[in-house]
Amino acid sequence: MSQSSKLAVVLLSGGLDSATTAAMAQQEGFAVHGLTIDYGQRHRFELESAARVAAALGLAEHRTVAIDLAALGGSALTADIAVPQGRSEEQQAEGIPITYVPARNTVMLSMALGYAEVLGAADIFIGVNAVDYSGYPDCRPEFIEAFGRLANLATKAGVEGSIEFRIHTPLLKMTKREIIGQGNKLGVDYRLTHTCYAPNQQGIACGTCDACQLRRKGFAEAGCEDPIEYQA
Amino acid sequence: MSQSSKLAVVLLSGGLDSATTAAMAQQEGFAVHGLTIDYGQRHRFELESAARVAAALGLAEHRTVAIDLAALGGSALTADIAVPQGRSEEQQAEGIPITYVPARNTVMLSMALGYAEVLGAADIFIGVNAVDYSGYPDCRPEFIEAFGRLANLATKAGVEGSIEFRIHTPLLKMTKREIIGQGNKLGVDYRLTHTCYAPNQQGIACGTCDACQLRRKGFAEAGCEDPIEYQA
Repeated sequence: MSQSSKLAVVLLSGGLDSATTAAMAQQEGFAVHGLTIDYGQRHRFELESAARVAAALGLAEHRTVAIDLAALGGSALTADIAVPQGRSEEQQAEGIPITYVPARNTVMLSMALGYAEVLGAADIFIGVNAVDYSGYPDCRPEFIEAFGRLANLATKAGVEGSIEFRIHTPLLKMTKREIIGQGNKLGVDYRLTHTCYAPNQQGIACGTCDACQLRRKGFAEAGCEDPIEYQA
Repeated sequence: MSQSSKLAVVLLSGGLDSATTAAMAQQEGFAVHGLTIDYGQRHRFELESAARVAAALGLAEHRTVAIDLAALGGSALTADIAVPQGRSEEQQAEGIPITYVPARNTVMLSMALGYAEVLGAADIFIGVNAVDYSGYPDCRPEFIEAFGRLANLATKAGVEGSIEFRIHTPLLKMTKREIIGQGNKLGVDYRLTHTCYAPNQQGIACGTCDACQLRRKGFAEAGCEDPIEYQA
């Protein structure tokens, strides 16, 4: 198989990390099939950002698949629970936050696996990060390794041996500063990305939730300006 | 925690196996929260059967969650691909059939895991079967064990140690005859269940697809009459 015909599925959330991950997969020679999971997130701006990022990067394909994860409740990102604001770094480091969505990455990787099997793609990319991971259990290397083992037991292609699935996490050990540096080098347009957990009705980022704080700190450390607008 | 307050999530498809599994979980003392995944199956009668089974068993709760698995394509159960009819047992034993839905059980168990975490339930039941499993890779014991390991790495509750998730597969090594015998003993009303891959517009089973053949053989071997109607 030639370098140019390798297919990959990249989970694309509309955020900074997954946009960078998609650009890195393209850089490695993959024809990227972007997959966005509409899991009932309260702020829909993420989904629009994912479509804009996919178009700007010229992905081979971009699909958005709806999963009614909100029907299960339990998270500030899908249920009617307030998003924490203005927390200090110490507070952010304490335990797993209420913005954790139960089993989200397990569900999203499962969908990516199904899509990869249909496409005949062995390679699945997810932009998880163990440095700035905000305490989410399903962003850790142990979780990713366990999912990779599962993938090859779970599928027709894996069991028959026609595909050996690989889960790629190129951002796993990068700091936000390094991620932004890498994306800038690859020409990722961060104006198109959405990060905030609590945007206003026009989609303008709050600037103070955990996600905004992490993003702003990353741009500051990378020594470049964050091109998006903030309320605060 | 008293025996009567144990919660379990049971994946309920509307078929014979999952109805029996739910009854077995109740028999073990669990308050059963049934979870049905509407994954875009072409025949919608399964979903109605699941609701009827949940009501008849008096489950603590029953939720149906939509996932647009059909958007990924690739299976006769979700895409516009013909369901095989009248295959011999030898033909049925050959490889993995076109009715395989990519990553279906991985996606469904992921959803069950999210639901269990929200409920604070440690126990998840799925009615997979390794004897009559029709060659689906995600019905095998190796797959179930790998998912159990993943579950405890994937979740806040698992990582914090407040819950140790267990995946129960009570039907795993039972024959269809044994499953039906067990269900009859527990009073499962098999008239309410739906098995056929290719029902007519009134929901009447074809009698000749792989799933119907397996069901009819099971009732014949159990020495009792299948209470549902067939076209053929």
